Amino acid sequence: MELISIGKAAKQAAFQLANASTAQKNRALAIIANELEANCETILTANAKDIQLGRETGMSDTLLDRLLLDKDRLTAIANDVRNVIKLADPVGSEFDSKILENGMSLARRRVPLGVVGVIYEARPNVTIDIASLCLKTGNASILRGGKETFFSNMELVKVIQSALEQAQLPAASVQYIEKPDRELVSALLKLDQYVDMIIPRGGAGLHKMCKENSSIPVIIGGFGISHIFVDESADLEKSLNVVENAKIQRPSACNALDTLLVHQNVASEFLANLKARMQGKVTFVAEPKAKAWLDGAEKLRASLEGDFDTEWLSYTLGVKVVADITEAIEHMRVHNASHSDAIMTNSLDHAERFINSVDSAAVYVNASTRFTDGAQFGLGAEVAVSTQKLHARGPMGLEELTSYKWVGKANYLVRD
Amino acid sequence: MELISIGKAAKQAAFQLANASTAQKNRALAIIANELEANCETILTANAKDIQLGRETGMSDTLLDRLLLDKDRLTAIANDVRNVIKLADPVGSEFDSKILENGMSLARRRVPLGVVGVIYEARPNVTIDIASLCLKTGNASILRGGKETFFSNMELVKVIQSALEQAQLPAASVQYIEKPDRELVSALLKLDQYVDMIIPRGGAGLHKMCKENSSIPVIIGGFGISHIFVDESADLEKSLNVVENAKIQRPSACNALDTLLVHQNVASEFLANLKARMQGKVTFVAEPKAKAWLDGAEKLRASLEGDFDTEWLSYTLGVKVVADITEAIEHMRVHNASHSDAIMTNSLDHAERFINSVDSAAVYVNASTRFTDGAQFGLGAEVAVSTQKLHARGPMGLEELTSYKWVGKANYLVRD
Repeated sequence: MELISIGKAAKQAAFQLANASTAQKNRALAIIANELEANCETILTANAKDIQLGRETGMSDTLLDRLLLDKDRLTAIANDVRNVIKLADPVGSEFDSKILENGMSLARRRVPLGVVGVIYEARPNVTIDIASLCLKTGNASILRGGKETFFSNMELVKVIQSALEQAQLPAASVQYIEKPDRELVSALLKLDQYVDMIIPRGGAGLHKMCKENSSIPVIIGGFGISHIFVDESADLEKSLNVVENAKIQRPSACNALDTLLVHQNVASEFLANLKARMQGKVTFVAEPKAKAWLDGAEKLRASLEGDFDTEWLSYTLGVKVVADITEAIEHMRVHNASHSDAIMTNSLDHAERFINSVDSAAVYVNASTRFTDGAQFGLGAEVAVSTQKLHARGPMGLEELTSYKWVGKANYLVRD
Repeated sequence: MELISIGKAAKQAAFQLANASTAQKNRALAIIANELEANCETILTANAKDIQLGRETGMSDTLLDRLLLDKDRLTAIANDVRNVIKLADPVGSEFDSKILENGMSLARRRVPLGVVGVIYEARPNVTIDIASLCLKTGNASILRGGKETFFSNMELVKVIQSALEQAQLPAASVQYIEKPDRELVSALLKLDQYVDMIIPRGGAGLHKMCKENSSIPVIIGGFGISHIFVDESADLEKSLNVVENAKIQRPSACNALDTLLVHQNVASEFLANLKARMQGKVTFVAEPKAKAWLDGAEKLRASLEGDFDTEWLSYTLGVKVVADITEAIEHMRVHNASHSDAIMTNSLDHAERFINSVDSAAVYVNASTRFTDGAQFGLGAEVAVSTQKLHARGPMGLEELTSYKWVGKANYLVRD
């Protein structure tokens, strides 16, 4: 019942937001940024409660660090909001405009989606991030963060709602589901009468749960086995730099390299160089042929069933020798290439074949898989990284938080 | 189990289709068109079986007519396929191309969605229509038509598959779920490992079922209460033409007018004219104020609870007098305006307010709601009319059967 009131209020707020000017939305964002700094003490006190509870329940240091706010981090978050102000507002722009033969002026006009539901992990910065991106695009948001951030999020949402009211926008533009019951998440996924899109931010389990239970369109993403295929014609020295970058620069990212595929004709040389460059830093998980060439590496084990379907998110690298580009592509089709994949090659033909045959959100020729990112792609902001094919694929910026409507204007025109 | 084989085969076919050239896809379409005509006799014999079964089970004349094929209709269907050949192939085109500061050349390239599942009513022409539009855009399709068209569809799909093989494309590019069990539809909706999009073509019930049970993204649409609001400043004579067109030109269409809203200051004059022009042709279902002005009309009754939430699809028209544009917009928000809605006005301000405030796929100023249609909008083809906000809204053409992937090309580039 409570959730239905939240949905109704969000829908009502969305109607108002759809008519808010960019200036008004930016004013609200500016007030949010200032209020975050002005309420620093209260927010940090609330955050300290979450941290204490986290410690008591044995949360890991990594997770505690994600959860932690301090003055500097809060200032950084406020500045992130100020950066959103600078981004172009996609709402209201028209595209595919034309005059039909009958004289009707027809265009697609960008409009907010309406109400966006976001389910996310225990990171207080995501609360502000999502709320401000939704607000900028005229969407109302219903937030549901990890329960470990409860006190921080309560305080942050209070600050946001007060700022919204100061800017004469409805407080219900940003709402938070307070109750910890997991059932509320299932109920949110069925609230299709009021919610237009669900963004899950979290692991594969959360995405699967949303996909299987939601009657609202869901943005699936953030998961996928990333591959690099080193082709016969590749510049091996430069390819090694790219492989190292893709694996080591930030192994915990979803666009970090999981599986290296090497053409058999260059396997001997490339894998010897790989061993020399990366042994000790990386655990190699190799199929028999690759294992033979990597023999003697410090951390090396034979690959087992399922290894090539594993997103490592760590300093582990799957390695396989393939006969040619055809086998590489076959391997990727079976092993869930859907996020970011690259070919190292000097063959124009193979580059195009790879691009067209690999079914992933981002495909690279002679570049690291690590580039799949809203900021790297110049989108200004990143709402999520979609690996599905409907609506948006790959990094989603502000435009992907909008829909369009067809607008037809004429002089009392009737259809023949 | 059988469905899983269908899914796997479709996915495999989709990989091949993604690499097929436009010429090759067009060649397959040309062969399909020719084979439809060459196999006319076999197809009509199969269709006669469906018709006979339909008669025996007491199918209505309207439904029998939808089901019926004859030589002329089959020729028309073959010519529709030939028209698809002429349409531009959206696959492979790039947009948002740019060179990033680091030198990477980045673009979004249009690609097929992959595998499209379509559940539709008992119309044999839809089988050919969907199969040819999917083929043109490089998508494999899994079809499930109404069981009343079983024999016709079996024969049509046989013709298509033989044509595909002649064109060296996989027969599994177009597959049909033969078994009549309804359970297979539920199973299809869960086949997310192989199917990328579900298009239901049918009534609100089918759409609801798909929305609630599918783990695959669904295109919801084809339903909505269409409104026209006659504002105080409207040209009343011309508005009457538009209202008549929207209601009467084809009342069974989903973009036909359901509810007429009239500003109170022009209600007396406009409704008197409406009565004079349309009485006898239309049953007016009016709230008290409107009923008073329509008093004496041949077919007139007081509106009841739910009337303004009814998509009439017939010669019935809901009529309501409203205080102003604000009340009109409020009414439309409550009563499911999501498909096609229009304002008749000479006020620029009201026109813009209406466009921005009414949350429907197509919004018109001084034009009939009947224009919401792929052909009218110059899309060349219409796959469906979406009323949802993700992926596509309003009439969907070939482009809406595609996704995109990000393509990044560089010179062995690494991320800093």
